[in-house]
Amino acid sequence: MSDHTLRHVIEACDRAITAADYDTLMTHYADDAALVIQPGHVVHGKDRIRQAFIAIAAHFQHKLKVTQGEMQVIEGAGTALVIMETHLEIPAADGTPTHLTRRATYVFRHDPDGQWRCTVDNSYGTDLLSAQ
Amino acid sequence: MSDHTLRHVIEACDRAITAADYDTLMTHYADDAALVIQPGHVVHGKDRIRQAFIAIAAHFQHKLKVTQGEMQVIEGAGTALVIMETHLEIPAADGTPTHLTRRATYVFRHDPDGQWRCTVDNSYGTDLLSAQ
Repeated sequence: MSDHTLRHVIEACDRAITAADYDTLMTHYADDAALVIQPGHVVHGKDRIRQAFIAIAAHFQHKLKVTQGEMQVIEGAGTALVIMETHLEIPAADGTPTHLTRRATYVFRHDPDGQWRCTVDNSYGTDLLSAQ
Repeated sequence: MSDHTLRHVIEACDRAITAADYDTLMTHYADDAALVIQPGHVVHGKDRIRQAFIAIAAHFQHKLKVTQGEMQVIEGAGTALVIMETHLEIPAADGTPTHLTRRATYVFRHDPDGQWRCTVDNSYGTDLLSAQ
């Protein structure tokens, strides 16, 4: 399923994050979507999600790079569960990048206009459990 | 979130599976839901999901026991991502049970009648990626 429409949507999100183009980024989220910022800390709604992305970019000195690896999509009843390797390049204080791979889980909804929009963005995947 | 409505729904599903009450079980699935039977093998729709549960029960000589552990629910835009420890007790050929814990991922949709219905049932969680 590597050529699934959702791969293109997620890649468009990555490009928008890198370009700090939050207007474009938000077109890919449902109005009352949820974003897991870190385990135990979830924000809802486009305004708060946008603010969170702006804060995350500033925290990482605008040097955070996100790329996607292997992907599995399971569609059911107008929704889709996306399970995806997410590679993060995070700048350390001295500028040296740290590389991290997460197994993310995203939920998308197929809207009547034909677009897939993210309803739950959880880049921590099942690690949410052990992180408690 | 251990007392979330969805814990009760999932526990009701476990009871229905144990009782081989597939009519009740199917009330908790959306019409065109998806069930991951094993990595790479997904079925869609209540009829096929029901048949899969019947086949799984027969395969395990009606001795498969499923119980739930820690749970995290992230609600967004009328959907919910459930991340849950699932404990399986599987009978071996000689009758000795094997214990297995998975980190499952389920997607639910909040329907207009107020019920949560499962749209994607993936008991393999993010292990789908390494299983390919």
